[in-house]
Amino acid sequence: MPGQLCALHVPPRRTMAVGRFYLFSLVLGTLGALCVLFTVYWVQHWRGGLGWDGTSLMFNWHPVLMVTGMVVLYGAASLVYRLPQSWVGPKLPWKLLHAVLHLAAFILAVLGLVAVFNFHRHNRISNLYSLHSWLGITAVALFACQWLLGFTVFLLPWASLWFRSLLKPIHVFFGAVILSLSMASVLSGINEKLFFSLKNATAPYSSLPPEACFANITGMMVVIFVGIVLYGLLVSSWKRPEAGILTDRQSDWQPAEPSLNP
Amino acid sequence: MPGQLCALHVPPRRTMAVGRFYLFSLVLGTLGALCVLFTVYWVQHWRGGLGWDGTSLMFNWHPVLMVTGMVVLYGAASLVYRLPQSWVGPKLPWKLLHAVLHLAAFILAVLGLVAVFNFHRHNRISNLYSLHSWLGITAVALFACQWLLGFTVFLLPWASLWFRSLLKPIHVFFGAVILSLSMASVLSGINEKLFFSLKNATAPYSSLPPEACFANITGMMVVIFVGIVLYGLLVSSWKRPEAGILTDRQSDWQPAEPSLNP
Repeated sequence: MPGQLCALHVPPRRTMAVGRFYLFSLVLGTLGALCVLFTVYWVQHWRGGLGWDGTSLMFNWHPVLMVTGMVVLYGAASLVYRLPQSWVGPKLPWKLLHAVLHLAAFILAVLGLVAVFNFHRHNRISNLYSLHSWLGITAVALFACQWLLGFTVFLLPWASLWFRSLLKPIHVFFGAVILSLSMASVLSGINEKLFFSLKNATAPYSSLPPEACFANITGMMVVIFVGIVLYGLLVSSWKRPEAGILTDRQSDWQPAEPSLNP
Repeated sequence: MPGQLCALHVPPRRTMAVGRFYLFSLVLGTLGALCVLFTVYWVQHWRGGLGWDGTSLMFNWHPVLMVTGMVVLYGAASLVYRLPQSWVGPKLPWKLLHAVLHLAAFILAVLGLVAVFNFHRHNRISNLYSLHSWLGITAVALFACQWLLGFTVFLLPWASLWFRSLLKPIHVFFGAVILSLSMASVLSGINEKLFFSLKNATAPYSSLPPEACFANITGMMVVIFVGIVLYGLLVSSWKRPEAGILTDRQSDWQPAEPSLNP
């Protein structure tokens, strides 16, 4: 809570940063929810809804789960260490939250892959031929490596501080790369799906019918969401402060490993 | 040249950073050249080559100019301030190079738009309906704003140091956003083009014929190129050093505005 932080003698500039972070979170949360809701509305209203039966209704889970898992939940999970509550006290609970949220995002992504692979199998469609699929499978594979490596090095106790400090910037960089790759994959996927779905429609994609306009807007919202997440990761005043910066009363908080873990 | 920098008493860590930067530049230059050559080879070998006549040969300029302008040249231009030669001496020549290279990239992008708009006009195809086109036109429009604002604030002499320091992180952030958006646009464009071109082919996209495999690989190279550019922008030891960090002999170099301009 901002109040708790103020009780720890947070400097005025830091308090302003806290305020801006909550405004940022409000915008990000709203936009993330809209990305998911728009994707659900698209498949419900124009593509027949959701099902787990091998038909196109099963395919419809693919965009919903990918936007929710690989973009919105992934983006939110990346920003755990920017929460002002995480700036003080031991870091382990925040590490666990970061890992658990990313694991949930990964599970949604795997379910999203199951949906499209099952749909392809039922309809004898080839897997992994389009550039969209190459981008998507690369993003999920990198995500798996990133999660496993992050868990092994930053959560398990064996790694030395030297090794953690070496890996941290690489972990953060690949986190942003995977999110950008997910974004490119989602966008090429929406584009591809609209060309497929509206191929023989009375109003083709090129006439920009309401469905096309709606799905295009969903794609543009994904771009803005990812842009805002990357901005949140870059703003230095939202990063967990080094020991001694937040307050002079060191006894008020116990930074476990103040600067070595992401 | 690295030798010139050594003559200025560059600390050993900085010399290592210079060496790593030249290796990085070699990899980036090779990959950038391959991205352009692969795109040219794709349209030459499988799509009939290049022309400026309103036919599909004119369309073929679109991927070539966009990959060259919005990705490869844009990426190279973004890294001008990471060149070790730019770390010393007045900053103005490097600012001019940064602006001129970006202007060249922008001109290529505008020509790329002319190619596709002219092709559409000759073939009565609608403009700007697909998500790919929305992404692309947004990237080019943001690029135009970014260039004009950068020119006005960082090159013309009127802006105060305070305003420059305020705008610099925003300028750098939007630079990376535009590159990521260009990447997403290029990837969705390659994906879309392959679905169009191979729709009635004897070997459809789903059978992954050589053309599809080749163009997919081109797309993946674009991803790696953009990832490497973003990595180059983030590595702090390649950034222009603050006054006094590079050498104690301040008279050897004249940092005009050492830390305020991108």
